[in-house]
Amino acid sequence: MAQFTQIAELLAQQAIELPSWAFGNSGTRFKVFGTPGTPRTPQEKIADAAQVNKYTALSPTVALHIPWDKVDDYAALGAFATDHGVALGTINSNTFQDDDYKFGSLTHVDPAVRQKAIDHHFECIDIMHATGSRDLKIWLADGTNYPGQGDIRGRQDRLADSLAKIYARIGESQRLVLEYKFFEPAFYHTDVPDWGTSYAQVSALGERALVCLDTGHHAPGTNIEFIVAQLLRLGKLGSFDFNSRFYADDDLIVGAADPFQLFRILYEVIRGGGFGPDSGVAFMLDQCHNVEDKIPGQIRSVLNVQEMTARALLVDGAALKAAQDAGDVLGANGILMDAFYTDVRGDLAAWRESRGLAGDPMAAYAASGYQAGIAADRVGGVQAGWGA
Amino acid sequence: MAQFTQIAELLAQQAIELPSWAFGNSGTRFKVFGTPGTPRTPQEKIADAAQVNKYTALSPTVALHIPWDKVDDYAALGAFATDHGVALGTINSNTFQDDDYKFGSLTHVDPAVRQKAIDHHFECIDIMHATGSRDLKIWLADGTNYPGQGDIRGRQDRLADSLAKIYARIGESQRLVLEYKFFEPAFYHTDVPDWGTSYAQVSALGERALVCLDTGHHAPGTNIEFIVAQLLRLGKLGSFDFNSRFYADDDLIVGAADPFQLFRILYEVIRGGGFGPDSGVAFMLDQCHNVEDKIPGQIRSVLNVQEMTARALLVDGAALKAAQDAGDVLGANGILMDAFYTDVRGDLAAWRESRGLAGDPMAAYAASGYQAGIAADRVGGVQAGWGA
Amino acid sequence: MAQFTQIAELLAQQAIELPSWAFGNSGTRFKVFGTPGTPRTPQEKIADAAQVNKYTALSPTVALHIPWDKVDDYAALGAFATDHGVALGTINSNTFQDDDYKFGSLTHVDPAVRQKAIDHHFECIDIMHATGSRDLKIWLADGTNYPGQGDIRGRQDRLADSLAKIYARIGESQRLVLEYKFFEPAFYHTDVPDWGTSYAQVSALGERALVCLDTGHHAPGTNIEFIVAQLLRLGKLGSFDFNSRFYADDDLIVGAADPFQLFRILYEVIRGGGFGPDSGVAFMLDQCHNVEDKIPGQIRSVLNVQEMTARALLVDGAALKAAQDAGDVLGANGILMDAFYTDVRGDLAAWRESRGLAGDPMAAYAASGYQAGIAADRVGGVQAGWGA
Amino acid sequence: MAQFTQIAELLAQQAIELPSWAFGNSGTRFKVFGTPGTPRTPQEKIADAAQVNKYTALSPTVALHIPWDKVDDYAALGAFATDHGVALGTINSNTFQDDDYKFGSLTHVDPAVRQKAIDHHFECIDIMHATGSRDLKIWLADGTNYPGQGDIRGRQDRLADSLAKIYARIGESQRLVLEYKFFEPAFYHTDVPDWGTSYAQVSALGERALVCLDTGHHAPGTNIEFIVAQLLRLGKLGSFDFNSRFYADDDLIVGAADPFQLFRILYEVIRGGGFGPDSGVAFMLDQCHNVEDKIPGQIRSVLNVQEMTARALLVDGAALKAAQDAGDVLGANGILMDAFYTDVRGDLAAWRESRGLAGDPMAAYAASGYQAGIAADRVGGVQAGWGA
Repeated sequence: MAQFTQIAELLAQQAIELPSWAFGNSGTRFKVFGTPGTPRTPQEKIADAAQVNKYTALSPTVALHIPWDKVDDYAALGAFATDHGVALGTINSNTFQDDDYKFGSLTHVDPAVRQKAIDHHFECIDIMHATGSRDLKIWLADGTNYPGQGDIRGRQDRLADSLAKIYARIGESQRLVLEYKFFEPAFYHTDVPDWGTSYAQVSALGERALVCLDTGHHAPGTNIEFIVAQLLRLGKLGSFDFNSRFYADDDLIVGAADPFQLFRILYEVIRGGGFGPDSGVAFMLDQCHNVEDKIPGQIRSVLNVQEMTARALLVDGAALKAAQDAGDVLGANGILMDAFYTDVRGDLAAWRESRGLAGDPMAAYAASGYQAGIAADRVGGVQAGWGA
Repeated sequence: MAQFTQIAELLAQQAIELPSWAFGNSGTRFKVFGTPGTPRTPQEKIADAAQVNKYTALSPTVALHIPWDKVDDYAALGAFATDHGVALGTINSNTFQDDDYKFGSLTHVDPAVRQKAIDHHFECIDIMHATGSRDLKIWLADGTNYPGQGDIRGRQDRLADSLAKIYARIGESQRLVLEYKFFEPAFYHTDVPDWGTSYAQVSALGERALVCLDTGHHAPGTNIEFIVAQLLRLGKLGSFDFNSRFYADDDLIVGAADPFQLFRILYEVIRGGGFGPDSGVAFMLDQCHNVEDKIPGQIRSVLNVQEMTARALLVDGAALKAAQDAGDVLGANGILMDAFYTDVRGDLAAWRESRGLAGDPMAAYAASGYQAGIAADRVGGVQAGWGA
Repeated sequence: MAQFTQIAELLAQQAIELPSWAFGNSGTRFKVFGTPGTPRTPQEKIADAAQVNKYTALSPTVALHIPWDKVDDYAALGAFATDHGVALGTINSNTFQDDDYKFGSLTHVDPAVRQKAIDHHFECIDIMHATGSRDLKIWLADGTNYPGQGDIRGRQDRLADSLAKIYARIGESQRLVLEYKFFEPAFYHTDVPDWGTSYAQVSALGERALVCLDTGHHAPGTNIEFIVAQLLRLGKLGSFDFNSRFYADDDLIVGAADPFQLFRILYEVIRGGGFGPDSGVAFMLDQCHNVEDKIPGQIRSVLNVQEMTARALLVDGAALKAAQDAGDVLGANGILMDAFYTDVRGDLAAWRESRGLAGDPMAAYAASGYQAGIAADRVGGVQAGWGA
Repeated sequence: MAQFTQIAELLAQQAIELPSWAFGNSGTRFKVFGTPGTPRTPQEKIADAAQVNKYTALSPTVALHIPWDKVDDYAALGAFATDHGVALGTINSNTFQDDDYKFGSLTHVDPAVRQKAIDHHFECIDIMHATGSRDLKIWLADGTNYPGQGDIRGRQDRLADSLAKIYARIGESQRLVLEYKFFEPAFYHTDVPDWGTSYAQVSALGERALVCLDTGHHAPGTNIEFIVAQLLRLGKLGSFDFNSRFYADDDLIVGAADPFQLFRILYEVIRGGGFGPDSGVAFMLDQCHNVEDKIPGQIRSVLNVQEMTARALLVDGAALKAAQDAGDVLGANGILMDAFYTDVRGDLAAWRESRGLAGDPMAAYAASGYQAGIAADRVGGVQAGWGA
């Protein structure tokens, strides 16, 4: 197995983008609980996100969601972020909260509705130019609830046409990443339900169109690390939305439900050349902190990704290959498990301290008083959530 | 196979309770779409529910949800229902929308919160006395999102204690039905996740405590008709919440996702003595009409249950038993399928007409102008939904 | 809705290939039950398969599995089939029962094992030339049981290389169809687990490489008709392996577990141009009759496909499109359900009789005495199964 | 968190019974691979099982499967075991490999077949008296593949009757444990599919009838530790069959698929009083080593259980309770994860050495030459498997 010192430099390359909406309220169809100190503005979300980076140095960028994070002056918003030590990242479009999209957006049978959804993406691309963002991320809520409600095939054709129009608009240094999702909010069929569909659609667009893999968007039992390996092999893995789930798209803290799965995913990322700034694979979180505190929830999340990345980097690749080639099932599995079972937390704490950070970011944040401060300061206004 | 005339009398015994909340708006965490004509008050919900019964004669009662349907004068509400040709039915409690219940209600670690939840049920029982309702239905959203968040065992013990206090309060002609649910809104564990837990809990209470089976609350692949047969065998099947699902608790129109499953469920209901007014098994709907019209959605639903009940009643029980006893796999299966594949819709239309109803309730409702009327009349106010 | 007379001609175009192995014994890892009359030779399997066609006129061809159906003289076997009124169809390769394939076949780390598996496919292609078969069907059991056991990425690359060698060998009028399977016999990962992988692999090969969709090879909750629509759209749906399942790859009689799903699948086949001899989409069965009689099990199966095809053909496409375009959820769903609920069995019986067949093929076969004849005649020898 | 020294004494109480059949060949319906050195007799299985105990001191007993392990003289077999440092344990019945059981055993419609199955259990009880076994374990393969094939309700009643007859025969210091299984080998319904059914059935029998929980026998997404907590609460958890799975009943090495789940299960075992010799909860393995070596596979398995038990024992219960009571979601989760992420392997190795064992049992076994010895010695005869 590798030594921690051997992987320290690689760990320093890790960056995990935070979603602005993770700092607002979220919940289920049954209830959205509010909490003191929840941001009311994009600026307050960015300020909170900056706290995560302050204590971990792992999250230098913040993803925006349009229209939730619309502002008049994106240059000013970018400057605000810079002042807080972070930068603006991926732009996420939203075509699921307008009444016009009840029966679809980019797939809608009505050309006027489709054009409205396309125009929304054009607006997002304009914002990307203003913010300097590289990635336009499209997650579609489009789908149907009842057999016969829509024409599955026709919708797929219309989707291809809409995406082509959007892709034609992005800049040469920009990318379009298309997320897939197994189900929800549509229950009978979703228009981009699996990696195969996303892959087929982006392949038809061009080189700068890629797949976004959200770790919570698969059927039960799906081997996600296989998809990672396959998409890297095909050159089409653009980004991750990290989170975890026990059953559906639970959007829990990444690594919370099945840490070993996260380890295996990260191992395939590294194995396939998907780690590091030159890989073209963006790491992002996409989670909901329904019952836990949001800022420490995000800190815990990026630490989980970091800890599992460290374990995955520790795998003795040469020994593993030798065992695999020899058909030594238990030996090969044991080499992988050795890395997984290694407790890297002490080494990571020391490494953090060597870089001027607190060894225990969770404790440091808790001790900072920030949470009490925002709870006291942010009085009045409307707390941010998915509806605003 | 039986002839339709042989089952007509049994069909006349069928009653399917409607949930008042099906007439309000519902949706997902992503979006709740509103529609013109949606009720603003319990009275308007009851008026809409009465339309379903008017055209089908299948839904003589309406279930209330407290506090969504709280009124000052339940006698007046009952009289309003009677005036519209229906009666008030099951009272559903709600312990998932108060901030105090963020970490549990009947299972909460704090005795004060538990008592608040118990008191809410006492209030529901008071309402039951006022409305003449038989059943108090408890669906608990209690659970946790993260391993370690709660003490699974301690919560179960507290649940038993809380339920005992509630059960002690119900009247001698009243019943407590405890619903189970696999997941959602809690994602790691729910406190009543399966029929076994509900059965163990209600068995500890007494004879008037029974299990409520919601057809959408199971893990994928679960054989629901087996549970029906088992609970009937154990004398503990109290009621159904009918709906359908493709993946999670989709709350789609009953029979929409897997009509054959609905047929099998109803066959086991009949086989086990769960059909008819003397059976003690209450049929209810619990659905969400997120994208389809609500009143016709409910009409379609009760018709689906009726059509599948008719098919299930047509099964030639003697021939089936003979084939089963002979180990004739294909023969036995064929006898069941014969009934399922029989198109009863024409017979049912004629039967309806013989009883003074329209043969096609969907068309009759559509032609009635009611929908346009409520869309025009119900202007202003706040449309009913889950949050109010 | 269309009238039955309008679809009669289309129904006459339907052909469903039977798998020779369906007539041999099959079972689970726990037990394989034998039955009197089970074939001992490829000839006896073909004779049994011919019975299915005799009573249904639906299954003019029989698929062979190599080496289970290896013979010295394929011309003679073809003549035997012709004498029985059927023809030889798809050739299925087998790379899962040789000890050398314990850790893979086309994906094996050892070039010698890979070449052995490739050579087996070359042999299959030779047989195809002898039998006049069009399709070489490859289902791979390759995969691993434990994380780390194999190099997922490396195996995928080796698979691509092996497939390219096989594809280069097939004749100009021959096709390679690659089946995918979610799990089993490998439990951690399979090398072709989903349609996306099969699609990516066959797309790299060329036009005559296509995807085979086995209806039992998906994760729970997967919308199979979506995949049908997508593969037809991409021009890559080569064939179906029909069967049904409740949970895993149960290989039950097609339509037995979820008839509505079969209807939806067939509707998308027709919608997308996948029906009929010119479509390039081959219909096959791939089932296991573990506890039911085999020949009537196959008769029941082809009738199920036919009955659901008839229902799907009856869908009023123009009305459906109008309802879909109008956003009429219940109306569109109702149009689909109208066709599904229509009992076509009487019309099909009359249609069969008009073509000189028995109206009830199940009864006609049962009355024929064939089953008793083979039970009496086929004494001694080794009954065919998966091991031989 | 507790210190390792505080838990050492508790760890010494751990005993995990091995299944004799784990040392024979196993596989899937597609292929059973044989391996050099596989036992041919019950004695050779016991000798192999003794190797696991020799290197781990964790597996003092071996479970037998009747008829696979039938011998003429059980006293002699017991003495053989004693000579090898182990004892005979649970007796497992088998009612799934006789042709008479094709349509059921204890549930069969034919009283003669039921009596045959009951008599088989009487024979098992006789063997228990001869071997001094405490537990009779019943896993039923009974079920059906097609709707209508059997009468679900009638089968359940017959099961109750058969079990009562068997229970009446067991001795006062003996127990009956009834295992449940979600699916396989039956695909439509199984007669004991879930813990609720097993609980209802054994509750009707008496105090010495208990539930056996096999960790691979649940629907996807099922929270198994909840069932553990519930059964302990109800006083009905009799034993575990440990293994792991990614999708179905894969019977992989315990802890291999989801080590965190194993940790959570063991935590609830300890939390609920199910750990230790006085708890009445028996730990057993039930696995299939289809592609890996069997003896080291079993060593790896008991070590996995031990390692996760150690982690679970390390949980700081007082701190956890405090965090839970305070509603500190992240804090409580963090306390649990701290124990899970602690690498106990070094401490366990030292502890083993302090007890005269090798620090690394896997390496010690590999170095012993035992595997080469049995491969050389066990020539000829028929390797043990599920069929013999």
